[in-house]
Amino acid sequence: MMAAMAKNSKVKGAKAAAKARAKTTKKLTKKAEKAALKEATRQAKKAGKKAGKKAAKKASTKGKDKPEKPTGDGLPATAPVEVVESAGTEESAAKLTKEVKKDAGVKKRFSEVLAFTRGDQLADISPDSTPGFAGDQKDGEEALADCTKRLGQLQERLFAESKGGGKRSVLLVIQGMDTSGKGGILDHVVGGVGPQGVKITSFKAPSAEERAHDFLWRIENALPGPGQIGVFDRSHYEDVLIVKVHAMVPGDVLRRRYTEINAFERKVAAAGTTIVKVMLHISADEQKARLLARLADPEKQWKYNPGDVTERAHWDEYQAAYQVALTRCSTKTAPWHVVPANNKWYARLAVQQLLLEAMTDMAPVFPAASYDLEVETERVKDS
Amino acid sequence: MMAAMAKNSKVKGAKAAAKARAKTTKKLTKKAEKAALKEATRQAKKAGKKAGKKAAKKASTKGKDKPEKPTGDGLPATAPVEVVESAGTEESAAKLTKEVKKDAGVKKRFSEVLAFTRGDQLADISPDSTPGFAGDQKDGEEALADCTKRLGQLQERLFAESKGGGKRSVLLVIQGMDTSGKGGILDHVVGGVGPQGVKITSFKAPSAEERAHDFLWRIENALPGPGQIGVFDRSHYEDVLIVKVHAMVPGDVLRRRYTEINAFERKVAAAGTTIVKVMLHISADEQKARLLARLADPEKQWKYNPGDVTERAHWDEYQAAYQVALTRCSTKTAPWHVVPANNKWYARLAVQQLLLEAMTDMAPVFPAASYDLEVETERVKDS
Repeated sequence: MMAAMAKNSKVKGAKAAAKARAKTTKKLTKKAEKAALKEATRQAKKAGKKAGKKAAKKASTKGKDKPEKPTGDGLPATAPVEVVESAGTEESAAKLTKEVKKDAGVKKRFSEVLAFTRGDQLADISPDSTPGFAGDQKDGEEALADCTKRLGQLQERLFAESKGGGKRSVLLVIQGMDTSGKGGILDHVVGGVGPQGVKITSFKAPSAEERAHDFLWRIENALPGPGQIGVFDRSHYEDVLIVKVHAMVPGDVLRRRYTEINAFERKVAAAGTTIVKVMLHISADEQKARLLARLADPEKQWKYNPGDVTERAHWDEYQAAYQVALTRCSTKTAPWHVVPANNKWYARLAVQQLLLEAMTDMAPVFPAASYDLEVETERVKDS
Repeated sequence: MMAAMAKNSKVKGAKAAAKARAKTTKKLTKKAEKAALKEATRQAKKAGKKAGKKAAKKASTKGKDKPEKPTGDGLPATAPVEVVESAGTEESAAKLTKEVKKDAGVKKRFSEVLAFTRGDQLADISPDSTPGFAGDQKDGEEALADCTKRLGQLQERLFAESKGGGKRSVLLVIQGMDTSGKGGILDHVVGGVGPQGVKITSFKAPSAEERAHDFLWRIENALPGPGQIGVFDRSHYEDVLIVKVHAMVPGDVLRRRYTEINAFERKVAAAGTTIVKVMLHISADEQKARLLARLADPEKQWKYNPGDVTERAHWDEYQAAYQVALTRCSTKTAPWHVVPANNKWYARLAVQQLLLEAMTDMAPVFPAASYDLEVETERVKDS
């Protein structure tokens, strides 16, 4: 949204602008080469001989439409090559990340700090905490506002990339108890991106048609297209959450679903979709306060549903179901992030930063012109 | 987006807030009664005896799910009743309109100033002009920013209304030559509304499946649901524009389409959708400058398509096709608005104001609680 705003200034002195841009690009390219070399060395070191095949595979699904076969000699041939290929953008991406961290007063990546890994206990994570961020609410809101533009810019690049034939996309999966702030994430984080680039699906109780299919059928249908940010407001995880709490399917069917979900997400990721999963983690007391606030506000009463209190009675069972889902389905391909969400400002900032980190890593590129630039410039001039 | 922002401050002192709100509501209601009475008198005068049936019919399709039968005595019974029914909101709506006008330095409604009526010539409308707005670019951009919040608020109300069973929606149809700024409207006007409340469809050349159906089939499928703002980036009008310019259907088929479009839009409006149609009107010189700017900017080159110049050669034929479509399909139910668009800032402001005017007239209401407020408050407290 803002990206477009900055670039849509009245068309004047296009020639002079182009000249200045060419100069900047040259300068950036040199810097970029250095950065790319450094990154390539780092990746090569990290991947090592043993992990070579894996790294090659990962890199190939990350940046390419047709996955490249690993070289087979165990060396991570693909990764460094790829970094050099998109060098111009890698540099900008690196800068973006740096700026984000500076803006937000962040030292570590949110994706590291908030990752839920095997052995973690949901009950040990305080919903009041603000991991990875040292500032207060005011700082957090400023950081959110500062980074809105950047998220829009990255999405615009991803969209542009898809117009040049790219197949990559992003999928943000949002889960959380009632009143945990899922809608606020849509408005305040996703809302900052140009509306054409976003595909939001709110999953309700499945329809008769949806129930007649496998539980992943409607999910598959809602996946983002190339260049889009797909957003799931609730998701296939309801099929191991509410379904588990109310024992809506036999135990063996339920247990199979975790494996099915992991396989499904692997397939989605392999097709070029970067998956960002967030669980908005609130406390039972905070939910009570939010429900009472809804009831007290005539402009919010329509959001309240008596069924919410009925579900609330199963709070502990829901937490247990989340614990299992987070543990069994936090994979390398699609890790879960638990976002403490008693502070709405923090949850919004954290989800924004998770998206920013993921998209900065993707380093989407503006595609090169698919036509002869000089010929077309003359054609337009003569038209 | 902003509406939600203002209301999402941390939950504290809900009781005190509710008390203060109740006081304000009472005050507003008194004012509202006065305003409603005044409006009712005005409408009754305007409608008169002769136009009574028509006014009653219009009002009934405008604000109700089940159209009320006109009383048959020629008096506009429905209109004033309806105004009183939604009095609380009418007042707020009236205030919103007043504020918008004050903010934007506007004297007349944009919907009046920009309406294309029979006899108007597209060629007489200067693409450089800024009708209805006395300010400069800076003023225009400020007015746009000031009103973003209000548009979001109105959409939130419309959405809330639909959750209470309302069926109303808005459809913004955007047409214009290549580079006329359709995408900018999406980002800068529509982007200000919460992303859940918006359904954008960009119509490209029809697919094989779409071609196998009537030209309105894919349009029908893309209509907004209750509470949504639907946006058509291009639309069924391409079927009387590009199709006419390139004579893609026989003459009699084309001529029939204007009537079919009018009938279709009448049907859509009768089902509760307020239609706002805008043609972004740029000059041929401005298009040339914008195409050259795209070619000069590495970050915009992906937006350029050599086919754009090919179509540009048919400029005059397109203008003629627009002249016919605007003349034949600017109806009372769904009037066309020609928005001079050489100044992007003006076009954005004008489209925003057209939406604001339409939605202020709709006066969407937050639905009353469908449950017992006291009982539920106790249930939550005890949970």
